Amino acid sequence: MSQLPQNRAAPATLPEKSTAATNLALRRVAIDTYRENVAYLHRDCAVYRAEGFQALSKVEVRANGRRILATLNVVDDASIVGCNELGLSEDAFLQLAVQDGHTASVSQAEPPESIGALYRKLAGERLGREDFHSIVRDIADLRYSKIELTAFVVATHRDELDREEVYYLTEAMVASGRKLDWHEPLVVDKHCIGGIPGNRTSMLVAPIVAAHGLLCPKTSSRAITSPAGTADTMEVLATVELPFEKLADIVREHRACLAWGGTANLSPADDVLISVERPLALDSPGQMVASILSKKIAAGSTHLVLDIPIGPTAKVRSMPEAQRLRRIFQYVASRIHLSLDVVITDGRQPIGNGIGPVLEARDVMRVLENDPRAPNDLRQKSLRLAGRLIECHPDVRGGDGFAIARDILDSGRALAKMNAILAAQGAKPFDHNHPQLGSLTFEVLAVESGVVTSIDNLQVARIARVAGAPKVIGAGVDLFRKLGDAVASGDVLYRVHASFQSDLEFARQACAKSSGYAIGQPDDIPHVFVEF
Amino acid sequence: MSQLPQNRAAPATLPEKSTAATNLALRRVAIDTYRENVAYLHRDCAVYRAEGFQALSKVEVRANGRRILATLNVVDDASIVGCNELGLSEDAFLQLAVQDGHTASVSQAEPPESIGALYRKLAGERLGREDFHSIVRDIADLRYSKIELTAFVVATHRDELDREEVYYLTEAMVASGRKLDWHEPLVVDKHCIGGIPGNRTSMLVAPIVAAHGLLCPKTSSRAITSPAGTADTMEVLATVELPFEKLADIVREHRACLAWGGTANLSPADDVLISVERPLALDSPGQMVASILSKKIAAGSTHLVLDIPIGPTAKVRSMPEAQRLRRIFQYVASRIHLSLDVVITDGRQPIGNGIGPVLEARDVMRVLENDPRAPNDLRQKSLRLAGRLIECHPDVRGGDGFAIARDILDSGRALAKMNAILAAQGAKPFDHNHPQLGSLTFEVLAVESGVVTSIDNLQVARIARVAGAPKVIGAGVDLFRKLGDAVASGDVLYRVHASFQSDLEFARQACAKSSGYAIGQPDDIPHVFVEF
Repeated sequence: MSQLPQNRAAPATLPEKSTAATNLALRRVAIDTYRENVAYLHRDCAVYRAEGFQALSKVEVRANGRRILATLNVVDDASIVGCNELGLSEDAFLQLAVQDGHTASVSQAEPPESIGALYRKLAGERLGREDFHSIVRDIADLRYSKIELTAFVVATHRDELDREEVYYLTEAMVASGRKLDWHEPLVVDKHCIGGIPGNRTSMLVAPIVAAHGLLCPKTSSRAITSPAGTADTMEVLATVELPFEKLADIVREHRACLAWGGTANLSPADDVLISVERPLALDSPGQMVASILSKKIAAGSTHLVLDIPIGPTAKVRSMPEAQRLRRIFQYVASRIHLSLDVVITDGRQPIGNGIGPVLEARDVMRVLENDPRAPNDLRQKSLRLAGRLIECHPDVRGGDGFAIARDILDSGRALAKMNAILAAQGAKPFDHNHPQLGSLTFEVLAVESGVVTSIDNLQVARIARVAGAPKVIGAGVDLFRKLGDAVASGDVLYRVHASFQSDLEFARQACAKSSGYAIGQPDDIPHVFVEF
Repeated sequence: MSQLPQNRAAPATLPEKSTAATNLALRRVAIDTYRENVAYLHRDCAVYRAEGFQALSKVEVRANGRRILATLNVVDDASIVGCNELGLSEDAFLQLAVQDGHTASVSQAEPPESIGALYRKLAGERLGREDFHSIVRDIADLRYSKIELTAFVVATHRDELDREEVYYLTEAMVASGRKLDWHEPLVVDKHCIGGIPGNRTSMLVAPIVAAHGLLCPKTSSRAITSPAGTADTMEVLATVELPFEKLADIVREHRACLAWGGTANLSPADDVLISVERPLALDSPGQMVASILSKKIAAGSTHLVLDIPIGPTAKVRSMPEAQRLRRIFQYVASRIHLSLDVVITDGRQPIGNGIGPVLEARDVMRVLENDPRAPNDLRQKSLRLAGRLIECHPDVRGGDGFAIARDILDSGRALAKMNAILAAQGAKPFDHNHPQLGSLTFEVLAVESGVVTSIDNLQVARIARVAGAPKVIGAGVDLFRKLGDAVASGDVLYRVHASFQSDLEFARQACAKSSGYAIGQPDDIPHVFVEF
């Protein structure tokens, strides 16, 4: 059952309905429907006929003082569910916390309370604080259907939310879940809006700032559309799925952790919304701000450095767009009392050399060990971000943070801190000199001479994913050349690693379509203005 | 299996893939998932593990030279589906037209071809003709997930479509299904945009115009959110689900039919879109125009009278809004070569007295039989609509239609025509003097004296639905007073009929919340300007 979401809100607890007419015996149907609760009723079940349900109706199931909503499937096979039984998909069954055979009642589900507010948003109205709280509560309680969720996401994307509404949404998302309190005045975090492969700075920033004494309880997500998230890469080195109390102990002892955020029930409505946003590739400013800031506030952060990379294939492609996004972040952060430092960074190409969990873990460990093969861009960016966070401390003078971070890294104190964190989280054997990469490989070569004038973040990420990352942890892309590097025709641009022949073939086809690299003259390299 | 959609497009026929690696034995899983194809794989199935599917992934199943898309559910019970089997929900299984045990292959589904166009619409772009054709084709082929469908519907609602785009959408929806050709120069139809309970004019207009010799092959829908659709009411009197060829024979012999439109595969993409629009109560001008006109064009109509009721609780609430809607209808109709006559009618209250299938059938038959109890508003409105259609005939002088329609009705020729149609469609016994109404009743009384100043269409419809209509055909609301009628305190405003005690209680609660009636002075009655 490891695929079940662990951060689901507890079902509402309610008095049992008094009507006995609809009582059935619960039965666990061993079908995993992922995040969707499904109830199964036999077509000849008296309740099904009397209530006038239709297949795909939303029904409310009550048992054991709890209530869940489910989508109804109608069954014609008594071996799956009998006439006096109510079947529930695995996860739905778990939520009721009962044994097989327990009595349950089923009725037509009332529409979610907030549906009126949703309709008003669909009609183009501006919503108020109570509207957002009501909508987000229903979303976190899984009372919205996929249709209603999608309608909310589409009706609030682009410029449909003003900044005040983004603030209400953020606040409501925080309120929908748990809020951690570390009982310290300074709790730091860093976050990147995403889109740049290999950008594993968190795994360097957290040990550096923790070595300086700052509290940095870093929770990260797994990759959804990218070849690796911080949680996927960290999982190469240690366990990342930890019970929340264990996590808190590690943070208290080592001043930092690097864990998967899914166990802590932080901003659970965000996870539900993401399940709809990702398939639609929607990433609107308002939703991005609410999603990121709600997680940080819920995690108890007081100070955040936010990384907005900018480049032709980054999420943000122009400075005005980056500045506009920054203003919304700043407005909401100030309303919600989060100290925010936004940096606009170079997002023209991947950061580091490796793309994929094992390859990225290799790069991170090489930076920590001051290995000469360590990618310098990953080192420099991490030091600058860590420096910014260190300057949050009142005893550090503005401008001194970078040098302090560099000393911590060069002296080996960052490595020692990382090793302590890894040990506490249950270290796995890993040798960056011999990373366990996918053994099936091919190389992509330069077809002309010149300098590398562009690397397409999206295409390189796609190739790494097709090769198997992040599921196959040793799969991915290892970059041999970066922007501005001189290449001769026939030089290796990058090597693709896979573990399965079919993955390798798919990756080869993706590379044949487009290598993601362009070769030209130094003047062809696009310039980018950064604020960092 | 009568609940399965009958107008589904045939699955694409394709050469079998050559890879044998993913072959499994098909198994029918007796679960009815309604319009959503579901595939079931055991968690330990080698294909499931190798392909890296996730629960709720969209997969492509190929067998017997056909291809369908399905949502994946993961099963942990070998009695539902074994490790070497691929389970399919009932309807999905039927689409492949094979026996249990037939070999099938399964692979990750490619995203629908039109997904790029959908993303562009989400980003606010104007789409072209090819974009709409591509999107609508994918929708009709069931290649869109619920999330993608909803995104399309929300991204094209309100003012997101300009009138040219509405035309492209209409044209694409016609092209997605069957198009009937009656081989006559004049094929007439009438349609109402909906929202007014009891508005059963089609069942009077069709026999009147057919008695005059016009061809009127009327296909109607069942109620989705209302207490009765024309198909539901007609079904009280005769069979409405007829094979298309039978329907065509009836039309050729009697010049008209009154049947359910679901068997003819007209504009199938519309039915798919409605499955998302209805739960969201979305009814935007562009989607309404495309939905209505695509069905009419597909049904082979050449002349259409369109009824837009206007009133405080109608779909359209102001004359400017009605005129704006009319302009879009007119623009698209002219592009698509449909002769269109839009009438803007009084939508301040229900039409007729009865609301619910049997009650409405009673009103219709009383009008046809010139019974003194026949509701005059239903009679007058039907005569005017029929008159407009009769004037489509080149031999009829403008202004003469109403008198011709009245003669046909008063002379009994309309009744004779209706009886002929009923007999051809398989008449059921019905006596409007003793309609089989729900035997559980209560009455709602006036609590003060005065005149009826408003009747809330939405609330009265809600009460009729809660009482059981349209599923319970004898359930509904029988109105004793209409707008402007004088009432004394204690007079009966309406009677509610139900067949089940629980329905009666729900209806009583709904009435207690709001009776839907307001009593006041004659001056309080809202005025409405009509163009009819």
